[in-house]
Amino acid sequence: MARCRKCRQKKADVFIPHHRLPLCKEHFLEWFEEYLARTIKKFKMFSPEARILVAISGGKDSLVLWKALDNLGYHTEGLFVDLGIEDFSLISRRVAENFAEEIKRPLHVVSIKKESGLTIPDLKSRTKKYCSLCGSIKRYFFNRFARQNNFDVLVTGHNLDDEASSLLSNTINWQLKYLARKYPVLPEGNGFVRKAKPLCRFTAFEIKEYARLQKIEYLTERCPLSPEATRLVYAELMDELEEKMPGTKIRFYMDYLRKVYPIFNRQVEDFLDRPLTQCETCGEPAVSSPCFVCKLKAEAKG
Amino acid sequence: MARCRKCRQKKADVFIPHHRLPLCKEHFLEWFEEYLARTIKKFKMFSPEARILVAISGGKDSLVLWKALDNLGYHTEGLFVDLGIEDFSLISRRVAENFAEEIKRPLHVVSIKKESGLTIPDLKSRTKKYCSLCGSIKRYFFNRFARQNNFDVLVTGHNLDDEASSLLSNTINWQLKYLARKYPVLPEGNGFVRKAKPLCRFTAFEIKEYARLQKIEYLTERCPLSPEATRLVYAELMDELEEKMPGTKIRFYMDYLRKVYPIFNRQVEDFLDRPLTQCETCGEPAVSSPCFVCKLKAEAKG
Repeated sequence: MARCRKCRQKKADVFIPHHRLPLCKEHFLEWFEEYLARTIKKFKMFSPEARILVAISGGKDSLVLWKALDNLGYHTEGLFVDLGIEDFSLISRRVAENFAEEIKRPLHVVSIKKESGLTIPDLKSRTKKYCSLCGSIKRYFFNRFARQNNFDVLVTGHNLDDEASSLLSNTINWQLKYLARKYPVLPEGNGFVRKAKPLCRFTAFEIKEYARLQKIEYLTERCPLSPEATRLVYAELMDELEEKMPGTKIRFYMDYLRKVYPIFNRQVEDFLDRPLTQCETCGEPAVSSPCFVCKLKAEAKG
Repeated sequence: MARCRKCRQKKADVFIPHHRLPLCKEHFLEWFEEYLARTIKKFKMFSPEARILVAISGGKDSLVLWKALDNLGYHTEGLFVDLGIEDFSLISRRVAENFAEEIKRPLHVVSIKKESGLTIPDLKSRTKKYCSLCGSIKRYFFNRFARQNNFDVLVTGHNLDDEASSLLSNTINWQLKYLARKYPVLPEGNGFVRKAKPLCRFTAFEIKEYARLQKIEYLTERCPLSPEATRLVYAELMDELEEKMPGTKIRFYMDYLRKVYPIFNRQVEDFLDRPLTQCETCGEPAVSSPCFVCKLKAEAKG
């Protein structure tokens, strides 16, 4: 491998394809954190003083995000939502806790079993759409915890590969409701806290390299319940396009944000099936009352 | 193969996957022409009395379109634009002429060599973008001929596979200028005749089956000058999606027309780089004067 483009002395440890940049360990880490800071600034995600809640799964994205934000001097705390998926949840939680100890930041844990009486495996036997329901449940608890504890912003580890492939999926299916809200920062309002995706311009490869060089131990297992067949179709298509036409992912995503998002977002009211209301039981924002979590709770009791 | 869904007597000759329809020869041809008539009506493409100019290449799409429109009783004439691509143009022209004789309809021929002094192989040595330039040249002559000869509408053989893959390409690259005009019928105006794509809801497979059962001899060779690498990438991706999730093409395309096209089209003015003007030399609509065809003519002379 070539020499580092920055110091021109050390051998490069990482080559970043879409920036055509060979960098040594030190300058890769520096580049990564600077680029993260620039992304946060570019999208006006949050201020340097913000109290940030990091959604922690134990995977590479959430831990790398936490580490890099911490290195940049941000005030961060982590939240792990325990989904009750047997060994998978136990191991994820341990990985998250070990990491939090290492970087000496607080990690909060919310157990959906304690909160609602249910676990995700219970849902699997009730509905086919348990993957998307699980996503909604996580968002519910992350949002509620962030709001109740006065965090300024909730950040998640979604990376460029995630964002580009979900954009492709939303586009192929013309899901205007999702497209109109597909932006790496969403303002506070209607009971929702401010949300941001600071890793939205980083590829999975760059994130893995950061984890490797920082010696972050993360969970590599995928959720055992979820084949995620459909999501994988779009991820693979995006990878194919990227291989045949390098730079496609970042262009597709960034051009969307710049040129198309504003057009769809202006019409967001038209796209909403139902306006938001508030759940009369738990007080959280919901499309109807009681909200889906309170309904699940009631079912679990009954 | 099963029995025909329509007559329930004859053995099915064709199975149409995305309509899940097994049909015998007679009822497939009937279905094809009825579905064509419904498409023309659905998009208000043209009236039963319209004088129609069919853009003829000699390939399956243009010949099938001509045949089916003729069978439905429309007033059609064909136009073949001779691009001067040696054997390929000679053979295409012969195929087109034979077919016109068979269905006893007039075929007009415009030779770009006679009109401009140039052939497409001349362009190949001048520019890398000769494929898209060739497309523009064809559109120029088709449009001019249709307008000068008072046709009510110019129809082309674009099928669902073409439309879905070009929609995917325009989308991945967020080419709003094209997206805002991506509709199977475009009104007359600014020197352009009315244009329509009556085969936009038919797959290449259905069109080939129609050609087979009608014993239409069409040209199967692709243009020898054009590798069309990029266009093929999107066509292959679309085919992959269709294979993994049958019905994706028609949904992607039709939902675009129904839900998204109106949004982009409303903003079409914003997307145009330059408003249209008129070429002072030839009088055709153009982005600048002299237009690109007149510039090429001048170059060919000089």
